[in-house]
Amino acid sequence: MRVELLSVGTELLLGEIVDTNAAYLAEKLSELGINVYYKQTVGDNVERLAAALRIALSRADVVLATGGLGPTEDDITAATVADLMGVPLVEDEGAADRIRSIARQRGLRLLDRLLKQARVPQGAVVVPNPVGTAPGFILTRDGKTVITLPGVPAEMRAMAEQTVLPYLAELAGREDTAVIVSRVLRLAGIGESQAEADIRDLIDSQTNPTIAPLAKTYEVCLRITARAPDRAAAQALIAPIEAEIRRRLGEHVYGADDESLERLIGDRLRSAGHTLAAAESCTGGLIGHRLTNVPGSSAYLLASLVTYSNQAKTRFLGVPEATLREYGAVSEQTARAMAEGVRQACGADYGLSVTGIAGPTGGTPEKPIGLTYVGVADAGGSQVEEHRLRGDRQSIKERAAQAALYLLYRRLRERAGVA
Amino acid sequence: MRVELLSVGTELLLGEIVDTNAAYLAEKLSELGINVYYKQTVGDNVERLAAALRIALSRADVVLATGGLGPTEDDITAATVADLMGVPLVEDEGAADRIRSIARQRGLRLLDRLLKQARVPQGAVVVPNPVGTAPGFILTRDGKTVITLPGVPAEMRAMAEQTVLPYLAELAGREDTAVIVSRVLRLAGIGESQAEADIRDLIDSQTNPTIAPLAKTYEVCLRITARAPDRAAAQALIAPIEAEIRRRLGEHVYGADDESLERLIGDRLRSAGHTLAAAESCTGGLIGHRLTNVPGSSAYLLASLVTYSNQAKTRFLGVPEATLREYGAVSEQTARAMAEGVRQACGADYGLSVTGIAGPTGGTPEKPIGLTYVGVADAGGSQVEEHRLRGDRQSIKERAAQAALYLLYRRLRERAGVA
Repeated sequence: MRVELLSVGTELLLGEIVDTNAAYLAEKLSELGINVYYKQTVGDNVERLAAALRIALSRADVVLATGGLGPTEDDITAATVADLMGVPLVEDEGAADRIRSIARQRGLRLLDRLLKQARVPQGAVVVPNPVGTAPGFILTRDGKTVITLPGVPAEMRAMAEQTVLPYLAELAGREDTAVIVSRVLRLAGIGESQAEADIRDLIDSQTNPTIAPLAKTYEVCLRITARAPDRAAAQALIAPIEAEIRRRLGEHVYGADDESLERLIGDRLRSAGHTLAAAESCTGGLIGHRLTNVPGSSAYLLASLVTYSNQAKTRFLGVPEATLREYGAVSEQTARAMAEGVRQACGADYGLSVTGIAGPTGGTPEKPIGLTYVGVADAGGSQVEEHRLRGDRQSIKERAAQAALYLLYRRLRERAGVA
Repeated sequence: MRVELLSVGTELLLGEIVDTNAAYLAEKLSELGINVYYKQTVGDNVERLAAALRIALSRADVVLATGGLGPTEDDITAATVADLMGVPLVEDEGAADRIRSIARQRGLRLLDRLLKQARVPQGAVVVPNPVGTAPGFILTRDGKTVITLPGVPAEMRAMAEQTVLPYLAELAGREDTAVIVSRVLRLAGIGESQAEADIRDLIDSQTNPTIAPLAKTYEVCLRITARAPDRAAAQALIAPIEAEIRRRLGEHVYGADDESLERLIGDRLRSAGHTLAAAESCTGGLIGHRLTNVPGSSAYLLASLVTYSNQAKTRFLGVPEATLREYGAVSEQTARAMAEGVRQACGADYGLSVTGIAGPTGGTPEKPIGLTYVGVADAGGSQVEEHRLRGDRQSIKERAAQAALYLLYRRLRERAGVA
């Protein structure tokens, strides 16, 4: 079974937004072992959308289109698909009811316009939208299927996960017996080129599974991808390669797949019944933001104090004025006092700190932009690391947050080992 | 002149990387007034690449392809283009010399493989690569032009800026003297459908400039796009439409283009010489993160205290235990006490607060997930707003941060009006 992706939206052709929807869907389809050979992008224009749909239907079994399902005049996907497939648009009662009920709940006006979204091609199956008002649909005619989803990423993802991906998995299962399974190993404390050099022979000699490095802004990932008749067989191919990579890269492999540092930290704190407080400076709140992206983080995170000014460092964390005066806000001594101070002020089991120079100004020859100290404190004492991070302000913030979380993660791992 | 973008690379179809190259090129071409009607993505496969090229050449004057120019077996773009255009591949001497010289300098091995990259279609003009070893090329046959660039973003961008975009500007200039200029108005405190209804007649009646809504996760934007012989003429077309939209939507239009709330807030605080302290709960640090993404924010941001636990709210912000007990942590009273408390504790001119229920658990019939209070305090008193936000945990955090920043922005605007 071949699926073609079709992204609809003039904003994509103007480069105003990056097409993350297509990357997300491509990844999910590849995990299901479904071949995607082509992806097209077209603007909000009836003729060109019809032309692109015609090409897609000529070479794929399923066209998965995102975008152009909203309430505005620009939203032409449903009408164009209906026209091309030779069926009229009709109002789906369930979808219309849902829109009415959402409109009532949220006090939305302009019900007529919103109700336009309930009009789907006759014979189509509605894909419910658990997040917003625009439903998608699945329409099959003459052995070809068109699936539509809205372009808003949160809506698209929810609908893909709930309805479309299971549907496609089922459809593919009837025809194609190969699945592709990927496992992503997440690394910290090691650069991409070093990680790659350490496993170069594996990368070169392996064809199933394949191994490929994936560079992200603030971490290095290795992707192991296997193709096999079923999921269990693919996992059996991956397991020995994963074990060999972990043997070589050791503790640098901190997690896999969606195991972010903040999730692993949360798991360890929760299971130990311990609490955490953080003191941030250059990261500006990013550590707290990441920690609180984990549902249930209120069980262990007491506070994350972004003490941007020196006075705030003294007032809330008890960093001695003399330390700030003598060593500066970006120093090993200040990072240590912040970690110990926030732990004490919050009565937390662990204190985490970061202080650094994110730029673009504020660097000196002695303390250049990117110089960052991360610290951790617990009942057993405190520890500070110096990092020299590269990149622009945003990248330095991201890398500093990652360095701090990785330090805390290692401390939690050691403590668990000792206990 | 029509340009079609063609991204080559199986990794794009597997969703392993997001296609930022295409967004970059689309934006640059739109700035030059060059129409991009379609974008295709295809894997590293000779037949499918040839099929995609054939379609692209049938509907565009210029095909701009990225990817597939490296030294490996998978890199098939040059050979496929040559084959389709009916010319042989030949080694370009200049490109070969440059590869030899880079290989010597950097101690690269596998010179034979690298030299493959110097083979370009006969009659093509080489596009030099100032960053890496893979050159691109421009090949024109029978009135159609194919341009190739490598997929590595840093190399692609350098070559586009140095050679390809000036070449296309020149080519377009011969046929078409129009430029496209866009202006994005950023809105807060109004939904997309309401904003659109208020300017529906403008959207419907305008063809140059055009007006289109752009929905983002936590804000609504309107894009005004004009086409004219030069930039000044395009801006002159945009100005009266922008004025009319601002007249109708009033204060909901808070900024334009890259004027984020955090930037505008920073500008106002800096010019007034005022300081800010924030107290966050459900946003977990996102407000501090956004505020500190603005370079120079240390001049006015004293602290952002993520007081996740009740104890932290009492200890650092002085929220009375009785308030928390009587009204709960998510209440108007607590939001007010947080804004006033953080202002006082930090000695700031402005205090900003947010407290809410981000989910996925913790909601009750009385206080459902998404219920959020944002507060602002200054010397003139305090003000709290209630919001009922939709979405998953991440979206609620983003919308709560936006609601808080918008409240602060309005307060700053009022104060400036009073002064």
